[in-house]
Amino acid sequence: MAARNKKGLTSRMGWNTESSIIVNGVDLCQDILGKMSLAEMAWLEITGTKATQQQSNVLNALLVSLVEHGMTPMALVTRLTYLCAPESVQAAVAAGLCGVGTTYAGTSEGAAKIVQTANSGPDRDRPVADVARDIVREHLSNKRTIPGIGHGIHRPIDPRVPILFRIAAENGLSGRHVELINAISVAASEATGKNLPVNVTGAIGAIASELGLDWQMCRGISVIARCVGLVGHLAEEIRNPIANEVYQRSDEEVTENAIALMVEPS
Amino acid sequence: MAARNKKGLTSRMGWNTESSIIVNGVDLCQDILGKMSLAEMAWLEITGTKATQQQSNVLNALLVSLVEHGMTPMALVTRLTYLCAPESVQAAVAAGLCGVGTTYAGTSEGAAKIVQTANSGPDRDRPVADVARDIVREHLSNKRTIPGIGHGIHRPIDPRVPILFRIAAENGLSGRHVELINAISVAASEATGKNLPVNVTGAIGAIASELGLDWQMCRGISVIARCVGLVGHLAEEIRNPIANEVYQRSDEEVTENAIALMVEPS
Amino acid sequence: MAARNKKGLTSRMGWNTESSIIVNGVDLCQDILGKMSLAEMAWLEITGTKATQQQSNVLNALLVSLVEHGMTPMALVTRLTYLCAPESVQAAVAAGLCGVGTTYAGTSEGAAKIVQTANSGPDRDRPVADVARDIVREHLSNKRTIPGIGHGIHRPIDPRVPILFRIAAENGLSGRHVELINAISVAASEATGKNLPVNVTGAIGAIASELGLDWQMCRGISVIARCVGLVGHLAEEIRNPIANEVYQRSDEEVTENAIALMVEPS
Amino acid sequence: MAARNKKGLTSRMGWNTESSIIVNGVDLCQDILGKMSLAEMAWLEITGTKATQQQSNVLNALLVSLVEHGMTPMALVTRLTYLCAPESVQAAVAAGLCGVGTTYAGTSEGAAKIVQTANSGPDRDRPVADVARDIVREHLSNKRTIPGIGHGIHRPIDPRVPILFRIAAENGLSGRHVELINAISVAASEATGKNLPVNVTGAIGAIASELGLDWQMCRGISVIARCVGLVGHLAEEIRNPIANEVYQRSDEEVTENAIALMVEPS
Repeated sequence: MAARNKKGLTSRMGWNTESSIIVNGVDLCQDILGKMSLAEMAWLEITGTKATQQQSNVLNALLVSLVEHGMTPMALVTRLTYLCAPESVQAAVAAGLCGVGTTYAGTSEGAAKIVQTANSGPDRDRPVADVARDIVREHLSNKRTIPGIGHGIHRPIDPRVPILFRIAAENGLSGRHVELINAISVAASEATGKNLPVNVTGAIGAIASELGLDWQMCRGISVIARCVGLVGHLAEEIRNPIANEVYQRSDEEVTENAIALMVEPS
Repeated sequence: MAARNKKGLTSRMGWNTESSIIVNGVDLCQDILGKMSLAEMAWLEITGTKATQQQSNVLNALLVSLVEHGMTPMALVTRLTYLCAPESVQAAVAAGLCGVGTTYAGTSEGAAKIVQTANSGPDRDRPVADVARDIVREHLSNKRTIPGIGHGIHRPIDPRVPILFRIAAENGLSGRHVELINAISVAASEATGKNLPVNVTGAIGAIASELGLDWQMCRGISVIARCVGLVGHLAEEIRNPIANEVYQRSDEEVTENAIALMVEPS
Repeated sequence: MAARNKKGLTSRMGWNTESSIIVNGVDLCQDILGKMSLAEMAWLEITGTKATQQQSNVLNALLVSLVEHGMTPMALVTRLTYLCAPESVQAAVAAGLCGVGTTYAGTSEGAAKIVQTANSGPDRDRPVADVARDIVREHLSNKRTIPGIGHGIHRPIDPRVPILFRIAAENGLSGRHVELINAISVAASEATGKNLPVNVTGAIGAIASELGLDWQMCRGISVIARCVGLVGHLAEEIRNPIANEVYQRSDEEVTENAIALMVEPS
Repeated sequence: MAARNKKGLTSRMGWNTESSIIVNGVDLCQDILGKMSLAEMAWLEITGTKATQQQSNVLNALLVSLVEHGMTPMALVTRLTYLCAPESVQAAVAAGLCGVGTTYAGTSEGAAKIVQTANSGPDRDRPVADVARDIVREHLSNKRTIPGIGHGIHRPIDPRVPILFRIAAENGLSGRHVELINAISVAASEATGKNLPVNVTGAIGAIASELGLDWQMCRGISVIARCVGLVGHLAEEIRNPIANEVYQRSDEEVTENAIALMVEPS
């Protein structure tokens, strides 16, 4: 075979000199520690640039909104893994994060992809209401769910949505992406005759797009936020363990049902 | 067998009512979104209480200090896993987090355990210098490394340490735990005749103890911080991929060496 | 909200009575230990039934063929994670398995899906050559790669393919799925004028389909096989460590390049 | 700083030439495919050598015995993660494997370490009964559990133990390690006045030691076996899902209890 073209390894993320630590070109000790918030550090890590106050406010809100969702499957996973391997706190959190997939976390990604695609191509100059109607029509004709639109589990409006949109607007980060996701909600409601508001993942996808983040980074934002939440669940599991009870009940019920099936005539 | 005593499942982490989302007793929409920083949210998750401004400042500094350490093995793991499974951003980060173990992250835990143990038992009322000498003597006689003490890889003093101690002091969170880790450094230097300053993990272990966090939560803090860093490495890997080059070079060198061994007389 | 319909938890996988352990209806001590091979146990686990000798032979061959591929990214991930967390052997393997994704392992799944879809729908009764031509035409017109077809990295024919097909045939498990993947190879070569043989993932996808396994289980087979391989790499890493060298070289090169960029005029 | 001594990267695990694939010095196509069982392949991977028939029989029995334990926390973790991220079968299994830690899997490791340490040091030439008494005395005086000894959850004797010991003996792999674990059981029963038989993890630790495997590899064997079991649970979860029910019940109960606490006078 032909020789492979080798390529140098380069990264701007972080390196050390004798007396300093540089992160994406910024001096950790002089310009970061005691000066940047964790959300600003996340911005520096993800984009390679220093956040403005507005970007910092909005990214912080997106992250905070995604931290905690109660006793989710991911929280159960982290707690059950800690039960099995209490010596590996990191593996318990990692196991939980493996579940930040398409079922619960993927829809903000999908919403971001839709608005970013529409707003970077030829549709960019058309009225948002027209673009929205086309997007809705295409999804309905292909029987595909529109990500970011529609009822959450328990209530007509997700109370987080208006607050997130307000924070974005107050920080000058509400533009055509937010307009488009709202227009899609209107068009979808008209086309179906149902009440289909923007849900929290739609808001997050649109606002992340206003921040200029690539749609793939929506998953990254969910992962950071959920990591905070899973460490929280671990801290509570250490104080007030429930994983063993969840396991014992499941095992007992499965065993009882299996034995019942064995002795019954089949 | 005897019937197991069942136990109810309880958690304060999060739940929903029709119109609100409650996190550890705090209303997400009214009192968290737009008002709490991500570090404050982490505090609420881990301790179940709202952070004071001082606790917020100090936890934020600890978290930020641990986010980025350059091209660590964990960063390589996340990048290599993304190369293999680009559809699972969460699994790439989870794989990287599996490495937040004893080699690089465990020492802040160890330092926290030492100062928390010494400061909660009968040693609590003895002079810190005496306690420190006992701790050093015991470790040296058992040929065990003292966690949190001693040279980092490249320089005589980790430049992060004085800044972290200053932030803790400015926020009224520098007490007997910080005194003890500094006294251990002095005692260790005297006992060995070497320069053995407090390193960054020692500072973090002591300051986390000042925050009242259980030593086990030091690992949780590392996991949150490193999660931010690994998402950052993923974002850079998407823009400027290097994982394939790392893999190809390793595979080629291993293959060349293996073939050379085969054809040589053994 | 309306009350949810509760559902009983049932599973046939395994349960215990006072004196016996039952796995999918089979007594572990009487009928499994000392009598079943690990591949037969895998069959029992995946299908819930006891394997015939033919099924056992063929599943064993598929699994064995996927165990080892040299210094893959996944092997590097497991070794690097062990370097960071030697106390968590399981987490090092888990991290490596996170990479059994679409880049290297997904294509057998894709090949299985194609042949299973074609052979279960109305195309089932048409000549395989015709079905194959349609499949190739559709993929080429949509500019999509045909999974399981085409050159492997280093050689014109993957030497594993004819052996796997022979083992399947000798065990009476070579039927319309194998015929179809071969016909797709012929049709693809004709349509493109290139030599496009069935590759090893195509063979595995087709043979797994002959075994009656759902296409989603191809990923499961890869995971089992690769798990064996990653434990092997860990055993070698303990005897002959290379992860630290891979890490140090990457970190040094990245640091040198970063410092060079800093001092150059930008 | 001084220049680091670079080290070449070497591995015997696997590599390719134009026409062949070599695994630990053995030709995959000529000498492995269709000829080796999966357990023999695992032996080749872990030890770098070809298994004898006896080694193959015994390693196969150890692996098979550990595959399935019913609805364990690890099985729940894999199922819950699949619910969240059905597109990442590998991440669901990886999450489950993160739980192969000290709580359920670590004891065979501990038993292996005890017998390997005793049988490789100066105790090697003393009567096993004497060595066993010393080991028991030391554990009891330090109030430490003796790994591998004592009642399993539900029955006086684990029915797998005599079968595993018989398979080891029939294959000439029952020597001083097996004698010692049995002697420890006798000594522990005498010292405590309780019935403390060898349990399944004690048997596995001793037999793995007879195979010459390092005690650290006991965890690796558990990981391989459990990986097969978790893929089985995934296959059943796809056919008969229960993860969502486990999650919904937990979430509902936690929410009900939390709301009850809120409205009650505190």
